[in-house]
Amino acid sequence: MAAPLHFWFEFASTYSYPAAMRIEDEARKRGVHVEWRPFLLGPIFNDQGLQDSPFNIYEAKGAYMWRDMERICGLLDLPFQRPDPFPQSGLLGARVATALSDAQRPAFVRALYTAEFGRGEQISDPAVVRAALQEAGAAPDMTLAAAQSAPVKEKLREATEQARAFGIFGAPSCTVRGELFWGNDRLEDALDWAVKT
Amino acid sequence: MAAPLHFWFEFASTYSYPAAMRIEDEARKRGVHVEWRPFLLGPIFNDQGLQDSPFNIYEAKGAYMWRDMERICGLLDLPFQRPDPFPQSGLLGARVATALSDAQRPAFVRALYTAEFGRGEQISDPAVVRAALQEAGAAPDMTLAAAQSAPVKEKLREATEQARAFGIFGAPSCTVRGELFWGNDRLEDALDWAVKT
Repeated sequence: MAAPLHFWFEFASTYSYPAAMRIEDEARKRGVHVEWRPFLLGPIFNDQGLQDSPFNIYEAKGAYMWRDMERICGLLDLPFQRPDPFPQSGLLGARVATALSDAQRPAFVRALYTAEFGRGEQISDPAVVRAALQEAGAAPDMTLAAAQSAPVKEKLREATEQARAFGIFGAPSCTVRGELFWGNDRLEDALDWAVKT
Repeated sequence: MAAPLHFWFEFASTYSYPAAMRIEDEARKRGVHVEWRPFLLGPIFNDQGLQDSPFNIYEAKGAYMWRDMERICGLLDLPFQRPDPFPQSGLLGARVATALSDAQRPAFVRALYTAEFGRGEQISDPAVVRAALQEAGAAPDMTLAAAQSAPVKEKLREATEQARAFGIFGAPSCTVRGELFWGNDRLEDALDWAVKT
């Protein structure tokens, strides 16, 4: 039987967008169950002495990433629009994703990534998050209130600690059978690892 | 007709090893002609303010990379042994690869990467480079002399300048039809781009 796969994403992360949009289809093909794990990359970047996105710090890498995102979204037929400023703060989105049930989380995550990187919207704006909740069929008022509660904030802090403990240093990442895979590029490898005997 | 693809590699680069070992097979399947381009990543890392390999600077990223290399080499059935110190200096290897003809270059590059990452040998040692030349059927004395000549040194400097001008920031990289692809992960995407109509 396939092992469950944990999919770690951060809303500020560009490559998490195509990964979030395609992971369920790829997982279904292989009979793999995906657990969606929101976390925050900021504290982990801080550990590494990074005060900003590496795509802003390293100019050539950033220029490449934006062109690469256009190509990837083009191949996947996903809308793409660069949000300004970049990176966006993913804190509110991560808290909301944490507050949601496992069943509601994936649709919300896809809706918020589409707002951010498909339409270039500001995901720190509660109205944008609210619209994504509505699109996902979740109750906006109740979820936004829960997202700001102490237990949800604590749960997100714990998830970030767990990510750090797994050696996660970027997003998206997948963990499966004690193995870590980094990047949208490696989604298939991670899923294949889940079905390895 | 497929566009030619330039394959940019640096001997210090870990992920360039599996890429160099498999690119010809993948290119042949698609009818793509590959031009092998040695260059130096050191001056480009210096532009970015990096005085060492990012895998040494960012500990979690480095730990991941070594495990990932084991997995990748395992899947490709390639020998893998971590060289110490890391990174190795790729300067002599890059000059020798520059001095060789287009026909001799790929076999030498594969032999030297196998010495470095398959057997953990010291590629700055002329004896190791000599053995790789022999394995590739090239004339060691003549090639090592040519490698230290002013025109070859200048050609390698120009290649590194050209890499910088293309926006290359890491290795392996592929350039094709004005597009840049970074990483062993993206070899197939780059080759597919060459056959796109």
